[in-house]
Amino acid sequence: MKVMDNTALDILISGGTTLTISKNMDIIENSRIGIKNGKIVFVREMEDHLPDCRRKKFIDASGSLIMPGLINTHTHLPMVCFRGLADDLPLMDWLNNHIFPAEARYVNRDMVYYGSMLAMAEMILSGTTTFCDAYFFESSVAKATVETGMRGVACQGFSDFPTPDNPKPSNKRDIARSFIEKWTGVSPLVSPALVCHSPYTCSPETLTTIKDVARKCGTSFLIHLAETREEVKVIRDKYGTTPVRHLHDLGILDERTIPAHCVWVDDEEIDILADCGVKVSHVPESNMKLAAGNAPIPQMMEKGITVGLGTDGCASNNDLDMFQEMDTTAKIHKVVDMDPTVMDAETVVRMATTEGAKTLGMENSVGSIEEGKCADIIILDMKKPHLTPLYNSYSQLVYSATGADVTTSIIGGQIVMEKRRLLTIDLPDIMERVKDISRKITGGND
Amino acid sequence: MKVMDNTALDILISGGTTLTISKNMDIIENSRIGIKNGKIVFVREMEDHLPDCRRKKFIDASGSLIMPGLINTHTHLPMVCFRGLADDLPLMDWLNNHIFPAEARYVNRDMVYYGSMLAMAEMILSGTTTFCDAYFFESSVAKATVETGMRGVACQGFSDFPTPDNPKPSNKRDIARSFIEKWTGVSPLVSPALVCHSPYTCSPETLTTIKDVARKCGTSFLIHLAETREEVKVIRDKYGTTPVRHLHDLGILDERTIPAHCVWVDDEEIDILADCGVKVSHVPESNMKLAAGNAPIPQMMEKGITVGLGTDGCASNNDLDMFQEMDTTAKIHKVVDMDPTVMDAETVVRMATTEGAKTLGMENSVGSIEEGKCADIIILDMKKPHLTPLYNSYSQLVYSATGADVTTSIIGGQIVMEKRRLLTIDLPDIMERVKDISRKITGGND
Repeated sequence: MKVMDNTALDILISGGTTLTISKNMDIIENSRIGIKNGKIVFVREMEDHLPDCRRKKFIDASGSLIMPGLINTHTHLPMVCFRGLADDLPLMDWLNNHIFPAEARYVNRDMVYYGSMLAMAEMILSGTTTFCDAYFFESSVAKATVETGMRGVACQGFSDFPTPDNPKPSNKRDIARSFIEKWTGVSPLVSPALVCHSPYTCSPETLTTIKDVARKCGTSFLIHLAETREEVKVIRDKYGTTPVRHLHDLGILDERTIPAHCVWVDDEEIDILADCGVKVSHVPESNMKLAAGNAPIPQMMEKGITVGLGTDGCASNNDLDMFQEMDTTAKIHKVVDMDPTVMDAETVVRMATTEGAKTLGMENSVGSIEEGKCADIIILDMKKPHLTPLYNSYSQLVYSATGADVTTSIIGGQIVMEKRRLLTIDLPDIMERVKDISRKITGGND
Repeated sequence: MKVMDNTALDILISGGTTLTISKNMDIIENSRIGIKNGKIVFVREMEDHLPDCRRKKFIDASGSLIMPGLINTHTHLPMVCFRGLADDLPLMDWLNNHIFPAEARYVNRDMVYYGSMLAMAEMILSGTTTFCDAYFFESSVAKATVETGMRGVACQGFSDFPTPDNPKPSNKRDIARSFIEKWTGVSPLVSPALVCHSPYTCSPETLTTIKDVARKCGTSFLIHLAETREEVKVIRDKYGTTPVRHLHDLGILDERTIPAHCVWVDDEEIDILADCGVKVSHVPESNMKLAAGNAPIPQMMEKGITVGLGTDGCASNNDLDMFQEMDTTAKIHKVVDMDPTVMDAETVVRMATTEGAKTLGMENSVGSIEEGKCADIIILDMKKPHLTPLYNSYSQLVYSATGADVTTSIIGGQIVMEKRRLLTIDLPDIMERVKDISRKITGGND
């Protein structure tokens, strides 16, 4: 209680019901949360309150639901610029005739920066406070992260094909290392990391080189893995094994490796992922929309694998609303496994919070509302018809709420949205910039 | 143009992009829509405009998207009172130990009325203008429909088990007939109809009796059909055939029969449904959440069957947002059929509008924005990050929009919501009433 004896809190959130998502899943009715220097200094019931404590900012959360900000473990933020550009197409047509050409032509520093700013506006407005992004010109994503006050893992991307930021793929080790060095320690909000696109676009040498840099720098390593049947066939034809086994043989799989998708994995591969302590990023809506397939997530979780949720990029999903991703996660596995008890709402909320934090190696700082953790907190207005009546908060969040129900968002103790107004982003300007980019794409102009 | 020569319009909507969902799927940029006496009197481009026409109400829709109100072809509105009461449970446990007992104890005229009012608030706020409801005490639903200004098909429910409004099931023919008579011609907004719960809860006699009344009165007849594998087994054990064939043998299937679910149907049964001109109500989120299975909807549509969308009741879904139902419809069939071209966004928007209208036998009055049709229109604010940029309106509606993006709703020429403010419902009062009901349920009090 020292903090209150001597100094004022930065923020006091008073009233409402707090879902802590602590180990015991404590739910605190009529709660009070004190925030100072970006951290949660207390969270408790109003009853055992102290003399009214001094604070710079007071938030009345009566009638609201308070929870940790959501964690999107896999996305490609700048791809908001391609949202809805090419839907309902065969996968290879979509990739080769629409997305890859658009990326080759229109992805540059500005596009990545403005796309990221728009994506961060969308994420804040829908309750996400931490993301893990993988793209090109990733420094522009990191820059936007600092400016908007979001928390992000920014992963610089690599493949053996020419990319917009590395047209003649070379010096991958140097580029990777200098990206990590550039962003290490710049801001508590930005964690630099690395991503190899996939086992079918990266040679064993590229994979081991980038993973080696990640390992030496102590950062996360992302990859798209076992997304489609076609990928499995390509890897089998090329290396005589499956994608998971291929990465395992190369020594890529460890506790800081975060593969996304993992749709086409057999039981033994699930065991490999579990044994290696790999964290899986589950992107169910993207897997559905692109007809990649359904990942055996309940089976992975049974084996003790940590699974976080992600939206994937907006060319494949087409939004960044983690509430919808939670809803879909709960429903798709029930129907696939023909078992309505699979993926209950509470489990899904954990996947979007604490499990997401573990996936990104951030479990000590974010993912729950507990003393000492970063103050990454969202507040939902529950006084709405679609959230009435209320029997079970987890059910309500997963099956009935949407991102639009989030009214206030705090990241690292900074209020980035209040009463649905964004406080760190000039939204009309950013929307205009992205519209300009989309007009170029539609018109075929550079 | 007569209307404008002599009299003022009731409403003029000016600016924005109108998706007419006409036969040619005309999209009108910078549109003008004139409304008078509940009907659309013109819809056209601003360019060929007439001298500024007189009107009582002017709506500036610049930057917005205008489309027909959405049509929810299958729901149980009063079940909002059970939203989130019992989720993630085995189907029979859910039904027998939670939903049926709660219904037996707490369903009465007031619960149905207040639940319907809350559900209508939720539907209006999320862009639905027409629904088809099936429940008990259906007169209370019809009453709420008139009061809120929504358009609804109100189906009085029958089964062989005691129901809250018919504890000793008897006089079914009389009850059915008098319900239809009571509500025929009362309001252009209410169409009375009848529903038998299912082939496993209704005897052949009940089914044929209620269908006979529906046929004689010229109303729709609803039923839950082939929802689960268990149902197929029960019908096979009892009647030696499958649910669809059983209804066909009884002469129940015709152009005014609207079965919901139709998950467990084989190819021959799809042919039977097509031959009989049956309209199917597809409720994908309910089928997923209860692990009923996936309905072969693309296969039905290939055979020419009209398919509308529905949310089902809030005990099974748990919301009434048709935008989310569209999103799920587009995605689930892609992954089940392993084909990303299945159920494209435009097709799904038609299912939620014109096809829904056909499903309910209302295709001449609602489902599209065309001269002479009822003015059932919604306006979406597209100036939002998750709706930016815009390449394809259908994609944006299905994959990115949610009900919360709807700002204005007009039903039969009456503005029922403007700038997200409900104009026909006292929302705080209704939410309090439903909370009272939920407190009784939680406390186990009558």
